[in-house]
Amino acid sequence: MLDAVTSLRCLICHRSYRSDEIDYVCPRHGVEGIVDVEYDYERIAATVRREDLASEPGPGMWRYSALLPIDSQVPRPPLLVGDTPLVPAPRLAAEVGVRRVWVKDEGRQPTASLKDRASAMAAVKALEMPAVDGDTLGTSLDPSSTVITTASTGNAAAALAGICASMAIPAVIFVPASAPAAKVAQLLAFGASVMLVDGPYDTATDLCMAAAARHGWYNRNTGFNPYMTEGKKTAAYEVAEALHWDAPDAVVVSVGDGCIIGGLHKGFRDLLALGWIDRIPRLIGVQAEGSDYLVRVWESGSDVLTTPAIIPTTVADSISAGLPRDRIKGLAAVTATHGVFVRVSDDEILAAIPDLARLSGVFAEPAASAALAGLRKASDLGHVGPGDRVVLMSTGSGLKDVGAATAGAAAVGARPIEVAPDDEAVERALAEHHIT
Amino acid sequence: MLDAVTSLRCLICHRSYRSDEIDYVCPRHGVEGIVDVEYDYERIAATVRREDLASEPGPGMWRYSALLPIDSQVPRPPLLVGDTPLVPAPRLAAEVGVRRVWVKDEGRQPTASLKDRASAMAAVKALEMPAVDGDTLGTSLDPSSTVITTASTGNAAAALAGICASMAIPAVIFVPASAPAAKVAQLLAFGASVMLVDGPYDTATDLCMAAAARHGWYNRNTGFNPYMTEGKKTAAYEVAEALHWDAPDAVVVSVGDGCIIGGLHKGFRDLLALGWIDRIPRLIGVQAEGSDYLVRVWESGSDVLTTPAIIPTTVADSISAGLPRDRIKGLAAVTATHGVFVRVSDDEILAAIPDLARLSGVFAEPAASAALAGLRKASDLGHVGPGDRVVLMSTGSGLKDVGAATAGAAAVGARPIEVAPDDEAVERALAEHHIT
Repeated sequence: MLDAVTSLRCLICHRSYRSDEIDYVCPRHGVEGIVDVEYDYERIAATVRREDLASEPGPGMWRYSALLPIDSQVPRPPLLVGDTPLVPAPRLAAEVGVRRVWVKDEGRQPTASLKDRASAMAAVKALEMPAVDGDTLGTSLDPSSTVITTASTGNAAAALAGICASMAIPAVIFVPASAPAAKVAQLLAFGASVMLVDGPYDTATDLCMAAAARHGWYNRNTGFNPYMTEGKKTAAYEVAEALHWDAPDAVVVSVGDGCIIGGLHKGFRDLLALGWIDRIPRLIGVQAEGSDYLVRVWESGSDVLTTPAIIPTTVADSISAGLPRDRIKGLAAVTATHGVFVRVSDDEILAAIPDLARLSGVFAEPAASAALAGLRKASDLGHVGPGDRVVLMSTGSGLKDVGAATAGAAAVGARPIEVAPDDEAVERALAEHHIT
Repeated sequence: MLDAVTSLRCLICHRSYRSDEIDYVCPRHGVEGIVDVEYDYERIAATVRREDLASEPGPGMWRYSALLPIDSQVPRPPLLVGDTPLVPAPRLAAEVGVRRVWVKDEGRQPTASLKDRASAMAAVKALEMPAVDGDTLGTSLDPSSTVITTASTGNAAAALAGICASMAIPAVIFVPASAPAAKVAQLLAFGASVMLVDGPYDTATDLCMAAAARHGWYNRNTGFNPYMTEGKKTAAYEVAEALHWDAPDAVVVSVGDGCIIGGLHKGFRDLLALGWIDRIPRLIGVQAEGSDYLVRVWESGSDVLTTPAIIPTTVADSISAGLPRDRIKGLAAVTATHGVFVRVSDDEILAAIPDLARLSGVFAEPAASAALAGLRKASDLGHVGPGDRVVLMSTGSGLKDVGAATAGAAAVGARPIEVAPDDEAVERALAEHHIT
């Protein structure tokens, strides 16, 4: 079980634990004590070669099982998680002024965001947990006897609800009373129990954490559960594999809690340790101006553990975070790779939705189009240049927030051409708009 | 060029044409004269074996190029079209009372519906067309000198806009003034020219057809362009291949214009002609009660060419069709495979959204959940039974119509559990709802 995992190491005190010793955080540091999963890379290298990954039993992210902290006996979700396309976007590259651009379209995950990778990992880890009722086999392989919980109103909640539905695992999701009805409806459609808390998001999180501890539920909360990083890292594997192990020069990704950028960093670190790539891309973290906690910390060099929360406000709800929960990993991803943090305005994020769509064919939610806005900013600031091969992480589908697309189209002046119902009116309108 | 295509045959007069002789319909029958693309199956069988398809250069639907009416020199869209998952749904099978159920999740196409297969085909065919400016190479391989047009407000329009954006092909889309702003915004985001016609849908279609003819634009309209069937048929190939060429007993799919069910039929006919499967599944066409043109024709045995249009009304907008444009192929798909047509109510369609989601993990739009409602109806009527292996076509993502999911969740009584912000209130609520 978990053969390749050597230890779980606290990112604050660097103390190591065995993987069966703790489930989530460093006991010395409580909820702040997020740990990193460490591997025996020699052992992994002896198990699998990068050339063989394409034919490993999958599908999707499970092709990389030798590099994942999972028990091979535990069932995987029947939904295809991972294997998302890396879309070449030469017109985008030309517009920005870099050598190559590819868009990693995570909007094509089962519930249309990158978070499916983490929730799929959560489901597998949950089934590995010793059963609360004292199952002598040591794991609760009966899905219905397992419960997974999280607090979220966004992509993580949808991902958990969808993955759990596919495996008949009960999901309990805590959301603030302010959660949009449409987002709650999707969770309900997947059969999740939705606890609508009469309070703000932080209260919902606190109640979720407490209930998980009381009931022995599996806790999927980001920045607490160390395995979410390990699910998300598979996106980095896919990028490197699709580029035939010639790692890009930079990967641009929006940052909220910091878990996705931390996961990408982990994935590339794994590949470098295995000798499968020869360098780690610079990671460029993009935050909204109104939710720029990590940009501030990075710019000022202040301590990410003591810097107080901000009040976040941005149109890109998926990256709105006053105190990024995975800020230690998120900050390290940029500093250790000699990357940069950039901030972009809501207007830039909205305008990037139609720009990304028309130049690549990928329709993205604001938190995903923010990566394009960030690439432009990084280019303007000289952080990427004409020689660079760049991957943009499109972390969620534009269908998640069609209202933002409407605002984005308006922002770039795209509007329908109104015509009277006759051929001559059509011809006049076409001529006027130079459509031949 | 188009080596495997022997002819285009009019479905009314059965006259054959060479593929370079006509672009769309039988000249004798005008817009009604839809043609079927016929192939030299011996030639195809000599070119490719079913065992080799998995390793054919792709990705996605282009793995089947030997069975498609396309010129191998023409570029393909850079987006991954096809290769959608076939999700096993044993709990759904148990609930309905059939042996096996798989859900073909077409919501994971680039623009989240099966229509991407047809629009991708349209893009490739458009680039094959002789250039209007007399390009001596015979094809207009410069995408920007090609224009593709369609009339649609729904999935076909989004698919055309997205595929065209990925290839820098200008798209002109005619929509009625009543089109929802959010749907228009998505088309605009992809950079399409949207002609907002002050009139109903039929007028938009007429203006589109006339403009296409005047300008020499490539015409993607369903039931007019014979190649849309040929794009959609690849879904049948994927189903058969995923089941190791052991064709299912029945395939259940919702029916609007009839093009998707006609495409599935064509795909299975191809495979039978090649000897790659040994029988064609029964095709079960599902229509909404308020848009049941083909059910009526099928029940009454009346002539599909002379039966007048109805006024359609259904919550499942993607299958709302008063006079199904591809009704000849749509009807034949059911009759020739000894299938059935069933009608389902809007309430049944809405309730099927959460049922499909919680029992399979696939979140579907109403036109897609209608397939589950139809399977239940077919089971009740004895058209499928405990021995049957069944494929449900989930033709579009639930994110296309989140409002319907909200109505669906309410229809099955799923609602959030309201709790006060304290641990005791949470415990009381959990106990009350038997969540442990």
